Amino acid sequence: MRQKYRISPLAPKKENKVSSIQGIELYTYCANLYDKSRNDVAIFIFKEKGSIAEVFTQSSMRSCTLDWNEKALKKKEVQAIIINSGNANTFTGKKGYQSLIKISELVSNMFNLSKSKIFFASTGVIGEEFPEQKIINAIRKNKVKNNNWMDAAKAIMTTDTFPKAISSKTKVDNKVVTITGITKGSGMIEPNMATMLGFIFIDLEIPQKILQALLKQLNAKSFNRISVDGDESTNDTVILASSNKIKLKNKINSINDKRINSLKISLYKVFSSLSEQIVRDGEGATKLIKIKVKKAKNSLQAEKIARSIANSNLFKTAIYGEDANWGRIIMAIGKTYEKINQSKLKIYFGNYLVAMNGKANTKINNSDIKKYLSQKEVEIQIDLAIGNSHADTLTCDLSHKYIDINASYKS
Amino acid sequence: MRQKYRISPLAPKKENKVSSIQGIELYTYCANLYDKSRNDVAIFIFKEKGSIAEVFTQSSMRSCTLDWNEKALKKKEVQAIIINSGNANTFTGKKGYQSLIKISELVSNMFNLSKSKIFFASTGVIGEEFPEQKIINAIRKNKVKNNNWMDAAKAIMTTDTFPKAISSKTKVDNKVVTITGITKGSGMIEPNMATMLGFIFIDLEIPQKILQALLKQLNAKSFNRISVDGDESTNDTVILASSNKIKLKNKINSINDKRINSLKISLYKVFSSLSEQIVRDGEGATKLIKIKVKKAKNSLQAEKIARSIANSNLFKTAIYGEDANWGRIIMAIGKTYEKINQSKLKIYFGNYLVAMNGKANTKINNSDIKKYLSQKEVEIQIDLAIGNSHADTLTCDLSHKYIDINASYKS
Repeated sequence: MRQKYRISPLAPKKENKVSSIQGIELYTYCANLYDKSRNDVAIFIFKEKGSIAEVFTQSSMRSCTLDWNEKALKKKEVQAIIINSGNANTFTGKKGYQSLIKISELVSNMFNLSKSKIFFASTGVIGEEFPEQKIINAIRKNKVKNNNWMDAAKAIMTTDTFPKAISSKTKVDNKVVTITGITKGSGMIEPNMATMLGFIFIDLEIPQKILQALLKQLNAKSFNRISVDGDESTNDTVILASSNKIKLKNKINSINDKRINSLKISLYKVFSSLSEQIVRDGEGATKLIKIKVKKAKNSLQAEKIARSIANSNLFKTAIYGEDANWGRIIMAIGKTYEKINQSKLKIYFGNYLVAMNGKANTKINNSDIKKYLSQKEVEIQIDLAIGNSHADTLTCDLSHKYIDINASYKS
Repeated sequence: MRQKYRISPLAPKKENKVSSIQGIELYTYCANLYDKSRNDVAIFIFKEKGSIAEVFTQSSMRSCTLDWNEKALKKKEVQAIIINSGNANTFTGKKGYQSLIKISELVSNMFNLSKSKIFFASTGVIGEEFPEQKIINAIRKNKVKNNNWMDAAKAIMTTDTFPKAISSKTKVDNKVVTITGITKGSGMIEPNMATMLGFIFIDLEIPQKILQALLKQLNAKSFNRISVDGDESTNDTVILASSNKIKLKNKINSINDKRINSLKISLYKVFSSLSEQIVRDGEGATKLIKIKVKKAKNSLQAEKIARSIANSNLFKTAIYGEDANWGRIIMAIGKTYEKINQSKLKIYFGNYLVAMNGKANTKINNSDIKKYLSQKEVEIQIDLAIGNSHADTLTCDLSHKYIDINASYKS
């Protein structure tokens, strides 16, 4: 049985309000993949020719839904996106892929679409038979549009403790453009591994090539900069799709088109908010940890070090214990094998400089740091003082609750 | 304050008996680095010209003791090894290195040795001032030989819950040769990160070059094949040293010298036992997990996959919960990005084949697997069926106790 958890202590105080996107219809279903109390399938239907861009997990054991999408992506058009929670459709053999064919046939008939322009995303348990019939039965019964897009964010949750969504409006060529993104974080069903899915919708017409370039740029600075437990999912995917409803006189012809400058900022805000929401709901998280690596030799080095700290169990457990054990940061930097100038390195907890000149800063008051670490949001700064590159990473602590969640019996 | 823990549930039923090595004298001290109740410094003195081989952590933030040793190693001779627990002498600035000079001066005067042929090893908290004076005071007061080498294993413990040592005897050219090894595992003081130290002593005369080659081979198959939490220490080191007391008529002239065949087997047993003892005392460990990857394309692939599974928090937490969630093994294989033939892959929990033909083996009885996983020692086998290479890894589970141990306050 899926366990119920109280809401994450890092959850936003109140739910974001989200807008629907013109030109896209939402349908939500309860296919009883958990129980009758919640929705578990969401379908987005594009009324006109929609554009789509997608990035995939690099896992060599990825879900067959991603094989399907990679093929569909070649059509450069989207007519529907079907998402389910409760089952990852990963390591489900040929039958798993056949389920996609069957479901796409049903949906293309019901909504009069082209089968090959349908996209899928699944999240849930790996290696269990895909509940094709349950999903088909649910979709067949119901064709009532849902105008509350927050319900889509709720339908894709697994063990997420709150739905993750955000909307943003901006102007392009004096036309109001709306962006709505939904995502889900580290989830477990009966129980299961973390799976990250993200869907960002927009109404502005953007050529597919530019959409894909935008997605790549935005993803690198948002979803790819977070970490909960260092375990990469077989199903991770982020989709950026446009209904192309709002058309400009002169089409956007380049990613550097000045007219989309403010749009890029809005999109980044959406991507960055969604990825932060995932960390805020990291399994067992009690603290949001921002790691800033500054003055690295190059950006690869900065990222490597930020990621190494963010993925260190010892570091994350120390932060959970509100323990200023920065020796573990030293360890995490060291295990990247990157050449560091120890005497120039500075480590800050918030504004407190804890290490400098190759040793501890003994002038710092330990009780001040403890007080700082007792907060829900903590910033760690590493100043390498050997170059001009930097990288940020967002992560959460490693707590007893993480073990509770992930040590539960499968059934 | 250092916390007291009960002994690991995976500890050996009774302490191994260990032999001293002729030609090497042991001195143990209480420098009060924890409290007056335990020893925390051990010195091995080589009565004749001793040979030494050493492998080091690859960390770029390693302890200054390893900088010292790397230099000393060039002399190809050892006269003393000084080991302390309680402080890692890492990120301790110039003062940390100066402490080594002072201590080596004291020890070389007391025992009439050459300063440059002294080796150091430290384990404990990072970034705290090295307690040079306490150590000097302790050594100065006491020059009584200790014949119980198990006391050396005890003196180098940090949060280890049992001392780790083993002896083995074998014959080379009809002469009885003795090997004694001591090691320490994942430790924490007030609290601190894991540090692995290993010291293996032998009385047979072996040229330094061959000793170093032997150490490299043995280390690759033992200490380098274990993992507790994937965090590599700044102080990891393994030393293989000989008193050269037992001399053969014709010196050993190659690592392939047939006369040392049985010695190699004995050495491997010692290395392998010591590294298994570390995992058995992994922080919070409740289960010993052996991961066997078979029929990989090449040994690099086999090792990569074995290590990825061994370091996956989700996998380790599942085993702690006795949960047959092999989907997490699929995930851990996938995140290596290695190309796998999903339909050929087989996964076994003990003798139970849980996944095959690209999907779950539904014939398996879940309660049988649960019973299997309730044991203290668990074997996971991954048959990739794409080549002839294999790799084994030893790890432990990730438990609530790991969080307890590592979330404690530093002071």
